[in-house]
Amino acid sequence: MAHYCVGIDLGGTNLKAGLVDQDTRVLCKFSVPTGVEKGTQHVVSTIASAVERAVSEAGVRKDDVIGVGIGSPGPMSHRRGLVINPANLPCMKNVPLRDEITRRTGLRATLENDANAAAWGEYWAGAGKGVRDMVMFTLGTGVGGGVIAEGNLLRGHFENGGELGHIIVQPGGRRCSCNQRGCVEAYSSAANVAARMVEEIRSGKASTLRAMLDRGEEIRAEHVDGAARAGDRLAAQIWDDACRYLAIACVVMQHATNPERIVFAGGMINAGPPLLERIRKHFHEQTWNLLDDFPQIMFATLGDDAGMIGAAGCAFRAQETGDW
Amino acid sequence: MAHYCVGIDLGGTNLKAGLVDQDTRVLCKFSVPTGVEKGTQHVVSTIASAVERAVSEAGVRKDDVIGVGIGSPGPMSHRRGLVINPANLPCMKNVPLRDEITRRTGLRATLENDANAAAWGEYWAGAGKGVRDMVMFTLGTGVGGGVIAEGNLLRGHFENGGELGHIIVQPGGRRCSCNQRGCVEAYSSAANVAARMVEEIRSGKASTLRAMLDRGEEIRAEHVDGAARAGDRLAAQIWDDACRYLAIACVVMQHATNPERIVFAGGMINAGPPLLERIRKHFHEQTWNLLDDFPQIMFATLGDDAGMIGAAGCAFRAQETGDW
Repeated sequence: MAHYCVGIDLGGTNLKAGLVDQDTRVLCKFSVPTGVEKGTQHVVSTIASAVERAVSEAGVRKDDVIGVGIGSPGPMSHRRGLVINPANLPCMKNVPLRDEITRRTGLRATLENDANAAAWGEYWAGAGKGVRDMVMFTLGTGVGGGVIAEGNLLRGHFENGGELGHIIVQPGGRRCSCNQRGCVEAYSSAANVAARMVEEIRSGKASTLRAMLDRGEEIRAEHVDGAARAGDRLAAQIWDDACRYLAIACVVMQHATNPERIVFAGGMINAGPPLLERIRKHFHEQTWNLLDDFPQIMFATLGDDAGMIGAAGCAFRAQETGDW
Repeated sequence: MAHYCVGIDLGGTNLKAGLVDQDTRVLCKFSVPTGVEKGTQHVVSTIASAVERAVSEAGVRKDDVIGVGIGSPGPMSHRRGLVINPANLPCMKNVPLRDEITRRTGLRATLENDANAAAWGEYWAGAGKGVRDMVMFTLGTGVGGGVIAEGNLLRGHFENGGELGHIIVQPGGRRCSCNQRGCVEAYSSAANVAARMVEEIRSGKASTLRAMLDRGEEIRAEHVDGAARAGDRLAAQIWDDACRYLAIACVVMQHATNPERIVFAGGMINAGPPLLERIRKHFHEQTWNLLDDFPQIMFATLGDDAGMIGAAGCAFRAQETGDW
């Protein structure tokens, strides 16, 4: 008999919802505005309504729905089912979201960090399928992360495991938004690739992108990528640095949790195979030759659905382990 | 009723054996030469005899002995019970040690990486008692490591998890014996602290330790520590670098596996509280201010017994999980 879980990927602007079966098939999915400006009760109601809508839209019996998984931005607590204080959800301070959703929908619910949920999604249904030890880096505005160790999401004592964007790869290096120096995020996130380009041009370095800056246009990571491919030396250097620091973070995780596969996700992977090839090249230049425990380095395959599918997967997993 | 396990810490020169009860009490312990020069069969017999001796010396009934845990240098495989090819055990190539010991002693056996066994020892019986998420760094000739995540030893897909000495902390930095550049081991192991001192003096830097070198005496890490305390600036710089890079490795592990406690072990911790204070100071200077998920940073408490006690603990754990 088929069983289902609802996945919710809670974002600052929209939330994505869907119904997923135990074989990772998505029966329906949709996106609705989160409505943070309307306050806590509105957001909670929006999530509860999305759960009901996913069940009815998919046309399954509610009795066959095992539960709801919710991926939430951090800080949050899986153990306590609590959204603590996410920067992009200002109305969601200390909201016991897990129990609220259960109260309103009658379904068991589990709460997970959104980056962890996305990593679990790729592990369960995407690029990590079939492996037991996986690491994921998500290259967006920041660099997110998630670690699966022996088939379990690694949460850690303070529930902040897998904050891989804040691995230090350059001591004394660029200041990160987290206040550390030299985080991989400070070199390799889309926002920081763009920011470095702007800084270098402003400091007087030559680049074909100077004209954009002079016209007051916003330089984004894809412009740096494009300029690098077109032969811009400064852009090529910044892009290459981003890949090299990601490769160092891969070496670090190779030795820390020793995954079979490292998966890259997020908007920046639209740069395509050359990005992957460059990370792999640097990885093999930077890693040891003592053993041949080299992880496969791959792109994620679920795109924007990873968080929603992963949240549903977390609910299936909660059912298995009893750890909602 | 009391239950017991035998712990074996297999080294290149000696092996340490002991009988440990389920409450981590050591009933007896002793050390015997491994005898690598006498070949595989001799080493295997030596281990088997040590097992029998531990049981009889402790005066317990063999029926009350659950099994034997063996900590072996890597490369080795817990899953296959195989010692593969350790540098300091040249006669132990592809030896199915787990099954050989069972065959000879009639006791179940489990094989674990020696650094992991020592980490498990501190987790089970020492500085990590009472926590579920722990990271250990062992500061000896090299820098070893071990990771406990949610009460489980993190082995990883290739069974090389927790090789924390090879976290890269300085890209393009000192060449490590593993062929990577900028490993924490290349700055913070006892051997490398001493090696850096010699290199810097030879390159012309002033130090009170130059006279030792001129006399042909060996400079060791404790000499660097002593000179640093006595006001030698070069020694102080090298010692401080060692602590700073260890602190960076702590920040990395804070974000990777998010432990409650980070434990330092090995000969270098004889430098005492000033070493710990310096690592802590650098840690708090290097870590983020986004969340207060700061691990406690402490010294190991079991000394040279960690590997033996941990090996016995691994056997108790194998009994619990069924994963011998």
